[in-house]
Parts: sequence; structure tokens; C-alpha cells
Amino acid sequence: MKKNEIKGLDGSHCERQNELNMLDCTIRDGGLMNDSNFSDAVVRAVYDCCADCGIEYMEIGFKNSKKLFSKDKYGAWRFCDESDIERIVGDAPRDIKLAAMADAEKSDYKTDILPKSRSPLSLIRVACYSHQIPLALDMVKDAKDKGYEASLNLMAICKQKESELSRDLEILSESEADVIYLMDSFGSLYCDSIRYLMTKYRKALADAGKKIGFHAHNNLQLAFAKTIEAVNCEVDFIDTTMCGLGRGAGNCATELLLGYVGRPILPALKCAQKHIEPMRAKLGWGFANAYMLTGFLNQHPRAAMAYQEAETHGDIAEFYESIIKG
Amino acid sequence: MKKNEIKGLDGSHCERQNELNMLDCTIRDGGLMNDSNFSDAVVRAVYDCCADCGIEYMEIGFKNSKKLFSKDKYGAWRFCDESDIERIVGDAPRDIKLAAMADAEKSDYKTDILPKSRSPLSLIRVACYSHQIPLALDMVKDAKDKGYEASLNLMAICKQKESELSRDLEILSESEADVIYLMDSFGSLYCDSIRYLMTKYRKALADAGKKIGFHAHNNLQLAFAKTIEAVNCEVDFIDTTMCGLGRGAGNCATELLLGYVGRPILPALKCAQKHIEPMRAKLGWGFANAYMLTGFLNQHPRAAMAYQEAETHGDIAEFYESIIKG
Repeated sequence: MKKNEIKGLDGSHCERQNELNMLDCTIRDGGLMNDSNFSDAVVRAVYDCCADCGIEYMEIGFKNSKKLFSKDKYGAWRFCDESDIERIVGDAPRDIKLAAMADAEKSDYKTDILPKSRSPLSLIRVACYSHQIPLALDMVKDAKDKGYEASLNLMAICKQKESELSRDLEILSESEADVIYLMDSFGSLYCDSIRYLMTKYRKALADAGKKIGFHAHNNLQLAFAKTIEAVNCEVDFIDTTMCGLGRGAGNCATELLLGYVGRPILPALKCAQKHIEPMRAKLGWGFANAYMLTGFLNQHPRAAMAYQEAETHGDIAEFYESIIKG
Repeated sequence: MKKNEIKGLDGSHCERQNELNMLDCTIRDGGLMNDSNFSDAVVRAVYDCCADCGIEYMEIGFKNSKKLFSKDKYGAWRFCDESDIERIVGDAPRDIKLAAMADAEKSDYKTDILPKSRSPLSLIRVACYSHQIPLALDMVKDAKDKGYEASLNLMAICKQKESELSRDLEILSESEADVIYLMDSFGSLYCDSIRYLMTKYRKALADAGKKIGFHAHNNLQLAFAKTIEAVNCEVDFIDTTMCGLGRGAGNCATELLLGYVGRPILPALKCAQKHIEPMRAKLGWGFANAYMLTGFLNQHPRAAMAYQEAETHGDIAEFYESIIKG
């Protein structure tokens, strides 16, 4: 039956299972739901799970500024001090690279990102909006000069005009970044948009030797479908999170991609059940109609997050009326 | 930005918004999670909601045998007696057609399906497995003779060999059915399989004037993505359910398709919040890793349903080991 012959969990549906770099960003993107207050036990469990599943990279948190984010409110994984990472990694680091995200205008990157020789981190991911690209380029250069791999994650492209995005990609092609990410920041893109944009990114970036990454959100229950589309479009890096734990509607679940590419899924099933699902009632990530609406309307999910986080959800009709105007 | 220019909820992403027949089967497929024990208030709310949203068909339940299904255990919507339907529809029926499903070998269709002139139903949907096709053809003929539209919903094609499916479709092309459904019974198909199968179905059935329908399950969080794929492949009928309420991992949510095709979504948001979501804690439908596993393994979800329905979920690793052998 060709494509309809289902072989189970052996990855036979995916032709690029061995060329893909998986990056689990549970602790980083999930940290947007709990101010990065994860226990060491959870971070260690995700670390071991990722290594056991053959995932190439684990993003362990943010490298963001202690001047802007209070250590009283935010947990260790908002800052990723090397001493905190080393407490998790211990004396027997596993065969997986660690990443941290530095947000443009939110990171004291010059001082807080140490030379690679003094850090367990391998990859610095610089996140920025279009207007912050000049700063982001300096952050990427700083990371590269210190010895790291570096990615540049250009957010909210769903709000840009095509001509602006073309111009930005031209600039990024000349940057020092190893990887440029296609970001589905608001979960508002459809699969055909991913195909279109992957082609655009490749055309703009391939000659410069840049790898391409993809990061999906699940506002329209399309995160896994878009991830498959990106894989079929020869993406190099894919972000996922355990149980989809991430901001608002969350991300593509690590378990789904593991099953699709045919890597070991059992460690992820165990980690999901023991460590991640128990947090769902309190953190409340995952698909809901409020997130669907901001997705359809191509809006930042912050209004939906406020709606979902309220003790008792308000009237969805009133929420609809309030955002349809925005 | 072409396909990436998101216009919101106006259906601008969908080129076929006006050619599509939407069929809401919340009460029918959802009835597999509560033995069809819905209150009249819920059934009436879904009926009004579907009409308000411009949905063409509402499937109100099963026409199944009272000899096989006890009236003590099963609610009215397992049988869809005309008196029960009329209690919902009342004296002022809305502008929407009603459908009921009759399962092969589970329906006393000759007696229980009345002549169309004595029933508020418009469409009889005959569900069968491949080996039941001879019986299903008789059921379709019976429905047509009585004055109904009829569909034939061939289940579990994901378990068939391509040659068997080709033979079945040839037989179905000669049936009296108005619509033949592509059924994603186990939620195990990928989007590329939908494209492949839609082409196959169209090739086999178009010359005979058959319309084609699509029914998705959400085991791999792909129900909406596959629905979009089917729409792009010029499907004629799409099944959805409010909040995705349906067997196991559930279906493509009606709200998602309404937003995609640009029909009124507000009535569905209200109905979902007031009538459907309050049932979730008890009925427990929707994506979970156990359903993902049966989806990946192309198995019927019954083992996952038993696992999910237990008071306290068992060990997911043990569940995995138990079904990977099957």
C-alpha cells in the first residue's frame, strides 16, 4: 500500500531519520509556564531521557539577565549558571550537547556567557525580533568568538511582510550563525506555509552554508504536522518538548517525533508519565480554544495565556470579542 | 507573503470553503465514550450550534439493534428512534440535515430504519469492514429504496493490502451509495497517505459519480492536518466533532474546521464551553500517549481505551511492552 503501509515505530515513514538533529527544549520553552522553576530531579530526568532517546541537543534554559529577572521569582534555568548545569550533568556527562537561549535585550551575554572552555554548554541560541537583528548579530559573534555553536532564532516572522523577511534572511546569510531557525512563534502557520518558507529559507541561506531549524507551536493542533513537513523539506534541526510542554498551547511533543523518526521512545514515555504529566494540572499548557483563536488571528498568545491562567476561565465569547478587535 | 499572509477567521486560507459539506458527528462518535447517554439539553445544543455555524449535516447517533444493545445501558442516541429525534428537533426544525449511522451486523435496518417520509433523518451512513461489504451494499440499497441519501463508510482500510482496497473500491463504485468515506479508523495515517488515498478513491469512484468523505482520528495529533489535506484534495464531506469528542483520541475539532473554512465559529465556541468541555473529565477523550502508541502501531485503540479508562493509569512502559508484541 506504499505510503499507507504502516510499520510502527521503526521510522520507516521518515526518509531522513539519521540526518536530523533533534533538540529538546522542554526545560527552556516549558520554563515560560513556570518561571523556569523546575526541580533538579525533573531537569536531570529530561537530560537522561534525551540522552537515552538518542536526541542530539537538550536546551536546558535561558542565559538571561539577573538584572531583568529576579532570582527570587525565577528559577535557576532562567540563568543557566554553569554551577547549576554542572550540578545536573555531574561527573558523568551523557553523550548529548547542551544548549541555552539568550534573548536579545534580555541577556548580559558579554559577561554571563563564559568561554566555551569553562562551560558544559555547546550551543548558544540567540532569539530576536526583526528590529533586534543588529544586536543579535553581535550576540552570535560573541558566542562564536567564545567557541560555541550558535543559532539565530528570528521570531514572529508571521507578522512580517515578505520583502522584510527577504531582507532579513539576506542579512542572516552573512552572519556567523551556524543555524537559522524558522520560528512558528504564534502557532499560526499552516503546513503549506512551512513548505513555502522552508524553500525560501533554503534559497536564501544554503549557499552561505547555514543549517536550518524549525520550532513549532501547537495553537492549531498542527505542531507535529508542520514538523513532519519541515522534515520532508530537509530541515536540519527540529525543536520538540516532552508532552509538548511549552508556552501556551505548547510545542510538538518529543514523543511524537521520536516515534516518527524511529528512535527509542520508551525512555520518553517513562519520563513523560513520571515527571512531565504530573505538572500539567498546575502549569496548564496545551491546546485549548483560546489558543486556537490567537493562532487563527495570528496574534501573540499572551491574551490567551491570561485567559487560561485565570482561576476560573471567563466567557469564551467575551474573549473572542475582545481579541477579534485587536 | 502569499500563503503566509494570515487573514484570521475569514477562510481565506481555504479555497474550497463553499464546496464542502461539513458533518458534525459529536453525538454519534462521542457516543462511543458514554454509551450514547447524552442529555437532551446537550443534543439540542449541538443541533442548534451546527445550524448556527452553517454546518450541512449533523449525525445524531446510531441506528443500532435493540437486541444487541440494551436500552438499560445505552442511551437513546444508540437507536435514534424517530420519537426521540422529534423531541429534539421539535416543531421548528433548523436548516440542517440529520444523519444516523447503521453498523453492519449491528443494525436491524430493515425494520428500524423507517421510510424517509416518516423520519426527520436525511442521510443513512452505513459503516462496515471489508468482509461485510455484501451486507453493507444491501443496507445502502435499503436506505436508498426508503428515500434517504446514503454513505458507505469502509473502516480499517489501514489494515488492508492495496490490492484488497482496490477491489473493494471497484465494488463500491457500483453501489447505490451517494458518498464513499475514506476512514482513518485508527488515527494511524499520515498526511501524505491521505493525499495518496484521496487520489486513489477519486480515481476509483469519480466516474461513477460518487462523492468522497473523510473521517479522521487524532491519535497522532494529525486529525486537523489530515482534514486540511483532504480538503485540498477536493473531498466533498468532512466529519468533525465539537472539541474533538469521539472514540479514544477523538476526532478533528469542529471549531478548527470552522475557523479554517471561515464559517461562524462563535456558536461553536459557546457550545464547546457550556456543553462539551464539562464532560471531558468524566469521558476522558482526547490525545494521550497511549493513543499515540496504538496510532503508530496501526492498531485499534481498544487497548489504549482500557488503559485510559482505568481509575489510575497503569505503567506506560508496561502498556508499551504489551502492545508492541501485538
